[in-house]
Amino acid sequence: MTDHWSRTLIPTARQVPADAEVPSHQLMLRGGMIHRLGSGVYSYLPLGWRSLRKVIQIIRDQMDRAGAVEVFLPTLQPIELWEKTGRRLDYGDNLFVVTDRHGRQQALGPTHEEVITDLAGTYLNSYRDLPITLYQIQTKFRDEYRPRFGVLRSREFQMKDAYSFDLNAESLDRSYQAMYEAYCRIFDLCGLPYEIVEAESGPIGGSASHEFMVPSPTGEDVILKSDKGDYAANVQKCSIGHRGAEPDLGGAPTGNLEEIRTPDCASIDAVTAFFKREVGSRLKPQNMLKTLVYELEGDAADVWGRFVVAIVRGDHDVNETKLSEVLTGSKGAPGTVQMASGESADAGGFVIGFVGPHVVAGRRDVSAVVDVDAAQGGFWVTGANEIDHHVKHFNWTRDVLDAPHRNVEVADIRKAADSDPSPLNNGGVLRETRGIEIGHLFKLGTKYTEALGVDVLDEDNQRQPVIMGCYGIGANRILAATIERDGGNDEHGIIWPVRIAPYEVIITPIRFEGRVAEVAQHIADELESHGRDVLIDDRDQRPGVKFTDADLIGIPLRITIGEKSLKEDQVELKPRRRAQSESVNVAQAAARAVDLLKDL
Amino acid sequence: MTDHWSRTLIPTARQVPADAEVPSHQLMLRGGMIHRLGSGVYSYLPLGWRSLRKVIQIIRDQMDRAGAVEVFLPTLQPIELWEKTGRRLDYGDNLFVVTDRHGRQQALGPTHEEVITDLAGTYLNSYRDLPITLYQIQTKFRDEYRPRFGVLRSREFQMKDAYSFDLNAESLDRSYQAMYEAYCRIFDLCGLPYEIVEAESGPIGGSASHEFMVPSPTGEDVILKSDKGDYAANVQKCSIGHRGAEPDLGGAPTGNLEEIRTPDCASIDAVTAFFKREVGSRLKPQNMLKTLVYELEGDAADVWGRFVVAIVRGDHDVNETKLSEVLTGSKGAPGTVQMASGESADAGGFVIGFVGPHVVAGRRDVSAVVDVDAAQGGFWVTGANEIDHHVKHFNWTRDVLDAPHRNVEVADIRKAADSDPSPLNNGGVLRETRGIEIGHLFKLGTKYTEALGVDVLDEDNQRQPVIMGCYGIGANRILAATIERDGGNDEHGIIWPVRIAPYEVIITPIRFEGRVAEVAQHIADELESHGRDVLIDDRDQRPGVKFTDADLIGIPLRITIGEKSLKEDQVELKPRRRAQSESVNVAQAAARAVDLLKDL
Repeated sequence: MTDHWSRTLIPTARQVPADAEVPSHQLMLRGGMIHRLGSGVYSYLPLGWRSLRKVIQIIRDQMDRAGAVEVFLPTLQPIELWEKTGRRLDYGDNLFVVTDRHGRQQALGPTHEEVITDLAGTYLNSYRDLPITLYQIQTKFRDEYRPRFGVLRSREFQMKDAYSFDLNAESLDRSYQAMYEAYCRIFDLCGLPYEIVEAESGPIGGSASHEFMVPSPTGEDVILKSDKGDYAANVQKCSIGHRGAEPDLGGAPTGNLEEIRTPDCASIDAVTAFFKREVGSRLKPQNMLKTLVYELEGDAADVWGRFVVAIVRGDHDVNETKLSEVLTGSKGAPGTVQMASGESADAGGFVIGFVGPHVVAGRRDVSAVVDVDAAQGGFWVTGANEIDHHVKHFNWTRDVLDAPHRNVEVADIRKAADSDPSPLNNGGVLRETRGIEIGHLFKLGTKYTEALGVDVLDEDNQRQPVIMGCYGIGANRILAATIERDGGNDEHGIIWPVRIAPYEVIITPIRFEGRVAEVAQHIADELESHGRDVLIDDRDQRPGVKFTDADLIGIPLRITIGEKSLKEDQVELKPRRRAQSESVNVAQAAARAVDLLKDL
Repeated sequence: MTDHWSRTLIPTARQVPADAEVPSHQLMLRGGMIHRLGSGVYSYLPLGWRSLRKVIQIIRDQMDRAGAVEVFLPTLQPIELWEKTGRRLDYGDNLFVVTDRHGRQQALGPTHEEVITDLAGTYLNSYRDLPITLYQIQTKFRDEYRPRFGVLRSREFQMKDAYSFDLNAESLDRSYQAMYEAYCRIFDLCGLPYEIVEAESGPIGGSASHEFMVPSPTGEDVILKSDKGDYAANVQKCSIGHRGAEPDLGGAPTGNLEEIRTPDCASIDAVTAFFKREVGSRLKPQNMLKTLVYELEGDAADVWGRFVVAIVRGDHDVNETKLSEVLTGSKGAPGTVQMASGESADAGGFVIGFVGPHVVAGRRDVSAVVDVDAAQGGFWVTGANEIDHHVKHFNWTRDVLDAPHRNVEVADIRKAADSDPSPLNNGGVLRETRGIEIGHLFKLGTKYTEALGVDVLDEDNQRQPVIMGCYGIGANRILAATIERDGGNDEHGIIWPVRIAPYEVIITPIRFEGRVAEVAQHIADELESHGRDVLIDDRDQRPGVKFTDADLIGIPLRITIGEKSLKEDQVELKPRRRAQSESVNVAQAAARAVDLLKDL
């Protein structure tokens, strides 16, 4: 179809908006694609909505092709469903909750596991009703603490979410694989480069998970990839291969435990700086033990005690997902783990900033979980469990293992980092990059069906809980990631791939009148008959303004028509991606344009 | 495209759901189109969503054809915008308001006048940017006091809303007319019979308005139509032609004002029954004056006083829209009018149930607005302004006009009713019918642009407020109205028109196996190549179940394939609308089906 610039709404802007940090946010605002209504809340203007609808159509086509069935579930979800699955707590303030006129609370759906599982419970009764994958495309809500990067982290966004229901694990594998392949097709069609990484399932819950990531330096997610190209994972999930040494808490002391006054030195950096300045010796962070205090709730607190200290080397960081897995996963018990508040830590007798692993000695209410790299002999400096003091020559056996009532667990609880060994233990080394998450697959298992009591009769007439998977794509994130990706923009503006460009061709008449206007309309009609979307820039503006705007909004192909070249029956075709334009005979212009679009 | 029943989700039910009062609600539930999640909140299952998407596509196509430009505005709307236009108060509890984690309130959009006017203020700067009509199709929210009738009155629904922006009234007329014509095309394409009636604009505000109504005895709206076929209006709006007599408050008394004890007779019916029983005379309701007490807020209270008594004949009802127009419209001043609460009326000295017009006598804080038919001489019975008492021989001049400080206004403030004269005063008589509102056009004027300070430079470089119109269609209501309409259902189920049927053809193999299955698939493929949507009922069910289900879900054409008839190379085609089926040769089946669909 063909639109005229003057009859639609494309409010381009020259100036970079002050609060837009990343290119996609800046260019979607400057290109008149979106308009900010409130914090993390955007209106889609005609250009943005056209591109988003094309993305949505690609998603829909491929979901249908994969055999998924489209439904449309409500935004207003009874809060009781969220309480039954325990996710009201997990989501916390991220969940928008509205109280209706009768005083009943409704969650504004950030996702629909509860609603669809409830629905499945009503209608799926027998193995004959399985497998089935249902999906929808709609607005989701999430009360982000700090919305940012435009539509990349907003409070209201367009999601495709799908949910599979299967009788057994093999069937789930097939459903999962069908979605995996559909996702590859979707992102390929959108022209996006992507990495598929192993991921942690987070508050959605479940047992296996992959993320589709678009590599980008502005991405909020950290990815670790083996330099052998055979492993990639989100930092939340990334395992670490065999370290230099096996864990060993049995090493001999390097000296007597010696207390040092370290006033105001409550961080690793402060302590090493203090040693350099006051002690005159170089203390490396990898010779320190970082001890963080966590508080447990639920059954896990009965297993581990109310507190857990997590201990990693001074140059490492705790991965709280891994820590939670140890405490509330297969080795632990149901419950929640969170960093102890100042108040809680005080009440528990912890001197925050100066805690050392030996705080567990003699206490039944505290356990220690020690990272593999920290569970080693050698010279250690750590907190003295006393304000403004650290200790030298800390020793695991003498200071912790020999104490009564101590409970110590060794596990991989730290974040993987650049240079760590690949968990495949094949000599690969992990490299850190960043990415934008655009899709996510989860094997949920029976988390939701058990919580909501959804089972079916199997072939032996026995009731079995239904096994679920869930599968999300952030439609608006596809737009932003397309701009953020390498080659998605340049100093002049956006560079759209043809399939999700708001228009495929922009016709720029130097002056929209007389024969120029006629030829413009004629070429547009021809392109339209080839099924192409065309924008005619019919504005009464200087050519420079029109060219600048065409580049800014990133239409893949520009056809320029001027009176002068028209005298020689020529128009100019310029792909947005290329520096060079070409002159083409008017009669061949549309055909040549269609040809060029195939390669853009 | 082709789907198989067993691979989608069509949970049909035999039983009529207990809480579903109207046919569309019952049949959408029984036909597995929707599922109730909460009060007034429905999930769209595959069949319902397919039909709804077809409706949405028809709307989109015609809006585009009318030159409207599609956008997508947020659900979360800063409450401050609603305060600026005064609509937070107008909407009251109908507005869902959610408080975010930072304590800021957001309305969940029931409509988008505020948001789009704010947007227009940012981007429309000059007459050259006008006219433009923007539209969107999305979920709206309204906290109905009593949601009912399934998707007809729900708390979450799909709307198309459009907004026009013009420089002057003539241009608005053109924009309005374009939408009017688009609406006719949309409802024609959906196969809906409709009436276009004059309507009151209600809380949206503005100066002219039309509603598109589908005639239906279950409709919530009352429509008055002249029997001459030249006038139709919503009861809220409907004017009344010349009555039998001009208003005349000057008639002579029929007797002395006489008080009668009427214990517990606080209604017209109770009083007439009392007269029959105790006085032995027949008192007609049309000889009584009904006096209702309203309370004013805002500037209007300065003009009229804090209270207004509205007086209509005992056989008439007050039209509060007309009353508000008198009090806060051109003759009045800004403010709100509502029925006085019991507490308020008590405090104001009104004896509810026994109020008479002469309550205004001597009071500066009360005005009377008298309907034309009540402003007549003759014999009147009315309340005595004293508990359990009425008066006979009430006379306007003696008992009201001659009193000090009385303020009396005569106006058309009653609801039009069956048999009233047409306002065209051409001898037409109004007849009452009911309808389902499916679309609404409003001329808004400058209500929103003035409240939010949106103006543009005109050709003389003067700032002019932009003139708006707004245009809504309830997409889900189209589905329900299609079922409710005459011919939209029968005792077996829904009867879809082809264009918005979830599938156009259902193929019902008696047993889905062997040659029967092959032929079914073959015919489906042929139909698919003609662009037809086909559902194959591949379930292992008795034929009776399949036929019953096919009728229930209302697919326009059923093709039945059985082993027996197949031996003679025949299949059976049966349109849902017709009682008779026809046998057709297998080779001709698809072609004949395509033919039949043209007429269904």
